[in-house]
Amino acid sequence: MEVRVLRLNHRPSRDKRVSTHLLLAARAFGASGAVYTGTLDPSLERSVGEVVENWGGVFPVRYSERWRSEVSEWRSRGRVVHLTMYGIPLQDAISAIRGNPSDKLVVVGGAKVPGEVYGLADWNVAVTSQPHSEVSALAVFLHELFEGRELLREFEGASLRVIPMERGKKMAKH
Amino acid sequence: MEVRVLRLNHRPSRDKRVSTHLLLAARAFGASGAVYTGTLDPSLERSVGEVVENWGGVFPVRYSERWRSEVSEWRSRGRVVHLTMYGIPLQDAISAIRGNPSDKLVVVGGAKVPGEVYGLADWNVAVTSQPHSEVSALAVFLHELFEGRELLREFEGASLRVIPMERGKKMAKH
Repeated sequence: MEVRVLRLNHRPSRDKRVSTHLLLAARAFGASGAVYTGTLDPSLERSVGEVVENWGGVFPVRYSERWRSEVSEWRSRGRVVHLTMYGIPLQDAISAIRGNPSDKLVVVGGAKVPGEVYGLADWNVAVTSQPHSEVSALAVFLHELFEGRELLREFEGASLRVIPMERGKKMAKH
Repeated sequence: MEVRVLRLNHRPSRDKRVSTHLLLAARAFGASGAVYTGTLDPSLERSVGEVVENWGGVFPVRYSERWRSEVSEWRSRGRVVHLTMYGIPLQDAISAIRGNPSDKLVVVGGAKVPGEVYGLADWNVAVTSQPHSEVSALAVFLHELFEGRELLREFEGASLRVIPMERGKKMAKH
């Protein structure tokens, strides 16, 4: 099952760091790429691209002007999950989502999610019904979707790699 | 087991939104309060305080000038977990941490974590060895620590509450 992330309504001035964290969390927890809407932001793409270059794997990030056509194109190849605190609790929704073998597009709101998104999603999922962060919501969702196997993933072609240690920092360079 | 979060080196100009997301994720995933160091930021405290007022529960946030005394005071009542991509993988460390009944202080870096932190922590834990976000690292760590039970938590005295729905948004006000 392949998972892509659609980040809605990115605003470079306000969301730069949060969107960077979001896309890096998407990569680290097993998604294979992302699309963002809102305002084009080459520096966001560059930040993520630098991580991919150093830390390996493949994680394309693409800008789109139209979230609606992204969602409708995706619907011809897979299913759509929308993360929202108003949706069905993660613990109630996750087995149906896991059990469905289609590729998934995970839609993550920025400011002002259009009401239509709720109708177009196959699942509206609440990672807690509390306000917190799209970054934490996405990470915990992916961690549940992949049942922790994403933690074991290797990123091919990395030029930097951490050597885990009880105390201190150690990296290998290739 | 009570869990508090220590956010290191908050810089209001740069970290405002990420630190807000971090503290809200701490609350949503079962921590019972937080301390931050770096620069005093009343607007950070206010943002979190407003969420607590509307969405319930108790989640004190306090500023401290000295991370070292926070850690050493904590060590007389509990244990210290430091989240860092250089540490021992979450999946290898989590059962020992869960199995230790002491209260936990979870230390989360901002920019430039002092090397001393690695030595003072009982566990240095890597939520993946990839760069992503302190927000996703903290959420997934707490979700593993509490084994998903934090998702079932009710927040007492909430004036707003989500009524989970398959499509759309519904809230109850008290």
